[in-house]
Amino acid sequence: MDNFNFYSPTEFVFGRGRESECGEYVKKYGGSKVLIHYGGGSAVRSGLIDRVKSSLNASGIKFTELGGVQPNPRDTLVYKGIELCRNEGVDFILAVGGGSVIDSSKAIAAGVLYDGDFWELYSGKKVEKALPLGVVLTIAAAGSEGSPNSVITKEEGSLKRGTGSDVLRSRFSILDPELTQTLPAYQTACGATDIMAHVFERYFTNTKEVEVTDRLCEAVLLTMVKETPRVIADPDNYEARANIMWAGMVAHNGLVGVGRSQDWNSHGLEHELSALYDCAHGAGLAVIMPSWMEYVYKHDVNRFCQMAVRVFGCQMNFEDPEATALEGISRFRSFLKSIGMPINFAELDAKEEDIPALVDKLGVGSGKRAGFVELDYNDCVNIYKIAVNAHI
Amino acid sequence: MDNFNFYSPTEFVFGRGRESECGEYVKKYGGSKVLIHYGGGSAVRSGLIDRVKSSLNASGIKFTELGGVQPNPRDTLVYKGIELCRNEGVDFILAVGGGSVIDSSKAIAAGVLYDGDFWELYSGKKVEKALPLGVVLTIAAAGSEGSPNSVITKEEGSLKRGTGSDVLRSRFSILDPELTQTLPAYQTACGATDIMAHVFERYFTNTKEVEVTDRLCEAVLLTMVKETPRVIADPDNYEARANIMWAGMVAHNGLVGVGRSQDWNSHGLEHELSALYDCAHGAGLAVIMPSWMEYVYKHDVNRFCQMAVRVFGCQMNFEDPEATALEGISRFRSFLKSIGMPINFAELDAKEEDIPALVDKLGVGSGKRAGFVELDYNDCVNIYKIAVNAHI
Repeated sequence: MDNFNFYSPTEFVFGRGRESECGEYVKKYGGSKVLIHYGGGSAVRSGLIDRVKSSLNASGIKFTELGGVQPNPRDTLVYKGIELCRNEGVDFILAVGGGSVIDSSKAIAAGVLYDGDFWELYSGKKVEKALPLGVVLTIAAAGSEGSPNSVITKEEGSLKRGTGSDVLRSRFSILDPELTQTLPAYQTACGATDIMAHVFERYFTNTKEVEVTDRLCEAVLLTMVKETPRVIADPDNYEARANIMWAGMVAHNGLVGVGRSQDWNSHGLEHELSALYDCAHGAGLAVIMPSWMEYVYKHDVNRFCQMAVRVFGCQMNFEDPEATALEGISRFRSFLKSIGMPINFAELDAKEEDIPALVDKLGVGSGKRAGFVELDYNDCVNIYKIAVNAHI
Repeated sequence: MDNFNFYSPTEFVFGRGRESECGEYVKKYGGSKVLIHYGGGSAVRSGLIDRVKSSLNASGIKFTELGGVQPNPRDTLVYKGIELCRNEGVDFILAVGGGSVIDSSKAIAAGVLYDGDFWELYSGKKVEKALPLGVVLTIAAAGSEGSPNSVITKEEGSLKRGTGSDVLRSRFSILDPELTQTLPAYQTACGATDIMAHVFERYFTNTKEVEVTDRLCEAVLLTMVKETPRVIADPDNYEARANIMWAGMVAHNGLVGVGRSQDWNSHGLEHELSALYDCAHGAGLAVIMPSWMEYVYKHDVNRFCQMAVRVFGCQMNFEDPEATALEGISRFRSFLKSIGMPINFAELDAKEEDIPALVDKLGVGSGKRAGFVELDYNDCVNIYKIAVNAHI
């Protein structure tokens, strides 16, 4: 096991109706003037924003608000948010939404206290301080409610860049599974795929003998395999929603990756798909991840057998372990298909002839992308090619 | 799933040699004058205390020290520690040891800032504030390095009382698996049993459909089932020690119990054994826990089948689920025996004729102890009786 630090100081406030307590938690964590930051109209139409305001009012917290966060949140809104916070004397950011809203909130929180252009913090400069942040989560997917990370897109040139710092971890995150019940099945499935991908990116490692982390990864994956079909079949199933929402946090606060190397190449390969075709991140991952697995499994057949047996319930074929490894990958792809995810380029409206452009944009150049298996330019082309014709 | 809060703000610093960084972490978390609190001579003889002092010196941190913490830590030493801290202007407590040292440190941390007798904080009064605390862990067992709890014994009358508060959670906990390599096999096995018991007390619940917590429980248990025999056979196996040490934290920082009712009756039944016979807590649990399981399994046969199949690898007997449940309990007891634990009264030097005294001290009276299954006076007698003659 490699040496590591694990730090997840967020207070998670989980369950039905807990958003009505957000005023108390803002107060507990020192806020007196809040920016409520959110996305489109659904948080307003559903009455959630009103309930949040009532709770803030009840605790005597002042607030201002800024909606309009888009998927792949933009730098332009972040600049607006920073200016608003400075003008209004905001001392606490409250993100009400999913990963995009939280990431935009993190950027504002850091930008307000940064003496310069906040984009520098997404271009290599370390985030040293940030306003305190709280979250009311509405989508189980990105895990940003428990992570130190944020990804922002610069409109000019469509540059997507990330940053990470423990000061960007939210002070509290309210997770009410009921808030996810109105989410359409497709988005629910995209979120579930993202959650599973966050685990798989950590599961495929070259560090040996980290059984406890393996088992924790498998715990989250097994939960997703059981609960996702239940929630697709029955969107109002609170228990299934609750299991998925908590699994989404556990998948990405760092716990299931400690003590070993990680991969993240599938996320990289996917980001180019969603950038070019404006597809959902989870949908792109459903196309890429099993294709990546098929391309790299020979690097460690036993690890893929472990996934096949422990996560997807395959019988180990002791005479032909490769068959078991491939059976596991096939079951994963069938699972994704069964919850309504695309599994190949056509189903994503992606085109084979764009592959050179995708790999060029990925920026592999003549080098290699580090990971479970290092990938050069041709490797990336080959993985996209598997994804073109993938089927079950 | 029940509503819950989960909060584990401790920074965990894990791996070989990390204790050499303790000065930096004390500084990071605001300490300038430290009380180094530890137990017997082994931490001194091994050179650990000297390494800790060197690290503090290198960071310009002043310190004083107080050794002598005994298993089942006493109020008398806590009073000494509080006085010492006040006289010396200590602003940070550094616990170097296992659960007893950490619990004693938590009591001192709270006591220093309490205007009155600290014992009131162990008699129902809420702990509102405490000096910041750091930990250098030397035994994988109690989980106090990640928990908000502390148990202290009042020498006068041998009263054992606990308290819990988020302000008692350590700011950082350094977990170096190498520090546990000198631990005798028996103590290692006692620690492993305690870790598994912390999970089982949360695993047996009456709350349905909390799959994610079930799976996280099973992740820790499966890790312990795999790694404990490895470390008993080969005490210098760093990887096995590392997996166990991290599993011990995960088992008790709250994560594997969220969203549901818990039990803790085995812990209660055991405390009377260790109080009367001065046996190790883990050894007492090895005698009690399978006996408790045999007594209560009919309350939820399927849950015991789940344990049998998922944790102990039993084949489900679909024609006779009770047989599977009992097979799982039997495998657990065999496992405990295999790692050198006692499994019945005789092996613990306990006496059947003491049972009435044990139950009287447990204080059931004419009421019931809440849990997975409520236990009255006779239930407790019967569980101890099963433990008398337990065998494999």
